[in-house]
This record gives sequence, structure tokens and C-alpha cells, in this order.
Amino acid sequence: MDKICVGVDIGGTSVKIGFFTENGENLHKWEIATRKENGGVYILPDVANSILETLDDKDMDIDDVIGIGIGVPGPVVHDEVVVECVNLGWGRTDVVSIMRSLTGIDNIKAENDANVAALGEMWKGGGQGYNSLVLVTLGTGVGGGIISDGKILTGSNGAAGEIGHITVNFNESVACNCGKKGCLEQYASATGVVNETKKALAASNAESVLRGKEHLSAKAIFDAAKHGDAFASQMVENLCEILGKTLAHIAHVVDPQVFVIGGGVSKAGQMLTDRILAYYNDNVMLALKDRDFRLAKLGNDAGIYGSARLILE
Amino acid sequence: MDKICVGVDIGGTSVKIGFFTENGENLHKWEIATRKENGGVYILPDVANSILETLDDKDMDIDDVIGIGIGVPGPVVHDEVVVECVNLGWGRTDVVSIMRSLTGIDNIKAENDANVAALGEMWKGGGQGYNSLVLVTLGTGVGGGIISDGKILTGSNGAAGEIGHITVNFNESVACNCGKKGCLEQYASATGVVNETKKALAASNAESVLRGKEHLSAKAIFDAAKHGDAFASQMVENLCEILGKTLAHIAHVVDPQVFVIGGGVSKAGQMLTDRILAYYNDNVMLALKDRDFRLAKLGNDAGIYGSARLILE
Repeated sequence: MDKICVGVDIGGTSVKIGFFTENGENLHKWEIATRKENGGVYILPDVANSILETLDDKDMDIDDVIGIGIGVPGPVVHDEVVVECVNLGWGRTDVVSIMRSLTGIDNIKAENDANVAALGEMWKGGGQGYNSLVLVTLGTGVGGGIISDGKILTGSNGAAGEIGHITVNFNESVACNCGKKGCLEQYASATGVVNETKKALAASNAESVLRGKEHLSAKAIFDAAKHGDAFASQMVENLCEILGKTLAHIAHVVDPQVFVIGGGVSKAGQMLTDRILAYYNDNVMLALKDRDFRLAKLGNDAGIYGSARLILE
Repeated sequence: MDKICVGVDIGGTSVKIGFFTENGENLHKWEIATRKENGGVYILPDVANSILETLDDKDMDIDDVIGIGIGVPGPVVHDEVVVECVNLGWGRTDVVSIMRSLTGIDNIKAENDANVAALGEMWKGGGQGYNSLVLVTLGTGVGGGIISDGKILTGSNGAAGEIGHITVNFNESVACNCGKKGCLEQYASATGVVNETKKALAASNAESVLRGKEHLSAKAIFDAAKHGDAFASQMVENLCEILGKTLAHIAHVVDPQVFVIGGGVSKAGQMLTDRILAYYNDNVMLALKDRDFRLAKLGNDAGIYGSARLILE
């Protein structure tokens, strides 16, 4: 019987759980609902029960479980204590101790979800073969995870890799969800790309297939750019400029081998990474030029891969 | 007899060498000239000889030497191989192997000089008591060193912490020494502060004691600001704004506990750190606000302290 690494990715709506071999082969994966009632007290017991039941269902032995890695949507310190998860209703929570007592399994680790996603992409995704990478997830928000020399860079308070909140526009008048103004997330998330496009449409008379669309989506903007719409292309160019310049900042701080771009917006593909690299190269010193840019491969499963990988460290 | 940690800091003009106890007490320190002839081949033999002779002079036993740490002015990979040191005439150089064969001492480590300075300030300087810090050295250039969870962040090619070359002005027309335009170093080094002040004096008619000075220095600008010269104060304010905003970028990437400001410019003291913190706070997300800002304490000795500390890891 193969040894089993369990990866858990706790989200605001559902919890993803996966069983993996030590080589990163996914044996089984499933989801359960995230019950946020009563300050989220049911979440970890639900996860523990689901893991134990599934082991039973699959005729797997709990003694073959190497450990359980857990990704949570909030800052984590010392691999185990969640500082706070507003999304789950959690205050300071010792995830590791709780899961130990619920499962009897000793090897439990917890990390921020964006950080484990980066570890997952390094293990079996777009960052395979590298040991030093920055994952940028362009979704509803902009997330980031940094791996340096094979290890997650957590930071002193679990806030390392919070690259979505780097200020990229010091003159912005609208506030980001975080309360600050001019964050990368305001321009480079799916929502941000749509908002910027709406603003630009309102401020010009340029022709575009995007004009007058009732439900403008990031996908519609990228599709229009691919089909030669000049206005949409300019919006994509603006996005790539902001990203390239910001990733250049990050390179001077952590000097990664590769940038891996994930999230819904990254579906725009190579068109995006090529242009980001051009702006990146214009804004880094010689020693940092022409780093690799890759697309993420694991999609929403990056978290369970990375959580499972976490316990092999 | 105390065990001895040897710290070496190789500069373009001189090599600083120090003997330390394991607790970081400096027992002895001295300098030798850096002989750069013939591609710098004499540098490491000179250092080895000087260490061996000094041990002899001081009646110290080579068997009491725990190891030798070496800071070099260039990128270092895997704690031992220098990628290149233009300043010393070195191409790719395996500093560790060479020093091992020259001294017979096994525990030898090499690191970039800015990075060991950060480690030194953490051990016995402005960063004492912290294990996660960013050192910013504002001298002729702007250097940086990052310690994360007690360890130097080297980066995949030894270029982590090269914060002097983060682009802070995308509209600059003049090139930095690195070839890129708009680097932090162009505004926040001693040279940068003087250049910016000269430009501003030429572009305005404002009164200032700085006007007409033949040899304008960063010190003269800070002194004028301290004595209430409005023009000089504005120049210091501009410097603090650029630094505060750039350190905010860095915080979102590595989340340090403390920023330590060193180099000649830092002699401006608390006036500088207070204003930098104000701009920093305006540009970081809530979780990163009000981090500690300290002044470096070890001056030019930070490198030998840090190099000595390196071999205790």
C-alpha cells in the first residue's frame, strides 16, 4: 500500500480534500461544504470526519497516512496557528493542535492558501523543475505565493507574498477592498480589468465590440483583444504593463527563477506572459532579466497539491 | 580559550577582518589593502596569510577557529561560489574551496557583502532581537540585505535584496550606474540626494542656504534641514517619500519585523526614520502597518560581524 499525503484547501464556500502519493499522484479528491455557522467551529471537525470516512470507504489504513496539510484563507504563523480568517469566521485558531486531536495524526501543518498553491504549482504544476518561484493568481482578487530555495516564504506575520496589495498607482481615488488605495488587485484582478475597461470606455469615444455590452467580463475583453479589437488590446497591454512593472519590483526583492501566472485571468495565456515579460525586462537590472514566465497548470487543485506537499518537508 | 569566528569583508579598496567570540564579542579587528592586480588573484591568499599571521601574533591556536565567513561585493550562489565581482576583477570564483586550501580550515562560507551586513546588524546591531529584517544601506549607492526567519535570503542567482535597483520613477531620462533608468539608488543614495537637490535648486528660485554652495554634500543638506531651511527640508521629505513607498513594496513581498536603515545618509537619524514610517504606513495593507524602523549601529563593521555570524549557522 502506498503511503498517503492528505491535502486540504479550506475556502469560504467549500473545502477541497485530496489523497496523494509521496510522488504527487492524485489518488482521490472531493469537496465538502464549508459550514461557517457559529464562528466556523464545525469546519475542522467536518474535514476530519470526511477524511476518516473516506479512508474507511476506500479501504485505506490510517497508519498509511503520512500527514495532513491544510491551506487556509488567512495568515498563518509558525506553520500552524492561523492569525485570523475573516472569511471563515475564525479568530486566532491553532489549526494544527485541533486537527491532531480530531484525527490522532501527528504530522499536521497549516499554511496560507496562496502559499500552498505556489508549493503545489512547484511540485506538479507550472513551476515543476524550479525551486524558487513566485505564483501570481489573477482571480477575483490578486493573490501571491513565494517559494525560495524550495521553502514557502511566510514572513514574520504570515503576510509575505501579499503582492495584490502593492501600491501601483499612488494617485488612485477609489479604495481597494483592503482599505488602501491603488493596490495591484484594483487593476489586475478579473474585477479590476473589467472596472478599468468600463472607465476607459466611458472616457473615450473609441470604437470597440465591448461598447454597450451588458455584462462585461474579463474573458470578453481578452477574447475581443484576440480578435483584433484595438481598444480591448490596449486594455490588455495596460494590464501587462502594470504586472510587468510590479513583478520587476518583486524580482529585486526575492530573485526567483520563475514567475507562474494563475487564476481566471491567466486563461488569456501566452499573449499575457509574453507582454508581461517585455515590461518586466524594461524594469529589472541585468542580473534579473529574462527570467522564466509560465502559466499555472493545476487550477483550483493547486491548493490540495501544495497542502499535501507541505507535510513532506 | 574562547572559540573564534573569523569575519572577512572584502571591499574594492580594503579588506576588513575581525576575530569574534561565538557570542559576537569583537576580540580584534584590522584591515589590509585589496590588491586587485592580475584579476584579483592575490586577494584571497593575502587574506589567508593575514589571518594565519594574526593568529600567531596573538598566540591564538588555529584549532580554536570555528570557521571563516567571507563577504564579497558581488552575487554569491549556494553560500560559496561568487558569480562575478567586477570591483575585484573576479569572474566566477569558488571562494570557499580556495580559502579551504589556503587555510586548512573546513568551515568556510561566502555571501554577498550587503547580505552579511544585514546578518551582522541582526546579530549585534540595530536589528538585535529580531529574526526577520530588511537592511537598507544608503551610501554611495543603495544596498539591501534581507533576513527571513533568521536566514539570509540569497535568491536564485544571488540577486535577492538588490533593492537599490527597484524602479521608483518610470519617467526618468538619466541612466543609473546599472544601466536601467529610475532606480531607487538614483534618488536615495548620498550621490542621488545631492543630484536631486542640485536639479531642484536649478529649477526654482526658492531661497536656501544650499544655494551657491561649491561642494554640496548629503550631510550639508540634512544639516540645513535640521536648522529649518525649508528647501532642504523638502528635499529630505522627498527622500523619505521615495523610501517609504519602496519599503512598502518590499513589505508586501517579505513581511519583515523591522527595517534597519544604514549607510552615511542614515546619519540624518530619527528625523529620517519617522518620516519614512509615515509614508510607509500610507502604502501598506493593515497587517503590515507600524513595523519597526531602526538605525543601523555597526557602521562599516557590519560586514565582519555578519560574516563571522555566517559560520555559526
